[in-house]
Amino acid sequence: MKARVFVTLKPGVLDPQGKAIHHALEGLGFSGVQDVRAGKLIELDLADGTSDTDIEAMCRKLLANTVIENFRIERLEPAA
Amino acid sequence: MKARVFVTLKPGVLDPQGKAIHHALEGLGFSGVQDVRAGKLIELDLADGTSDTDIEAMCRKLLANTVIENFRIERLEPAA
Repeated sequence: MKARVFVTLKPGVLDPQGKAIHHALEGLGFSGVQDVRAGKLIELDLADGTSDTDIEAMCRKLLANTVIENFRIERLEPAA
Repeated sequence: MKARVFVTLKPGVLDPQGKAIHHALEGLGFSGVQDVRAGKLIELDLADGTSDTDIEAMCRKLLANTVIENFRIERLEPAA
């Protein structure tokens, strides 16, 4: 079973990586960019039957820093 | 207009960050993890009317290294 975890900075948290990408895009001549936020995408290949609770525990304990980051879980195949 | 770009390593490309996450999850007692791949998520806030071609050019020129990475573009609102 596959799952994807999207980790994004919470609104209001400074994002120097996003700022750098924004600046670089402008330097390359892309003018219509108003804001850039950088996040992480983690693709998990899990044993069938892994519950949503388990995936959420992985996010809370390791994958995301919940003080400054939000996470969203997307299952690619339904739970067994 | 908002768009998301998902950047993932091509299959076969070594992913030390994913390996480290996998190892750490096992260390935390999550046993059902078979594989982990780490990627990037870039959220763009763009001027209305920015075309798909422009977003693809941003990916090819800056956001993704197309030698080792694939990218996927997801628009959150339709083109103006």
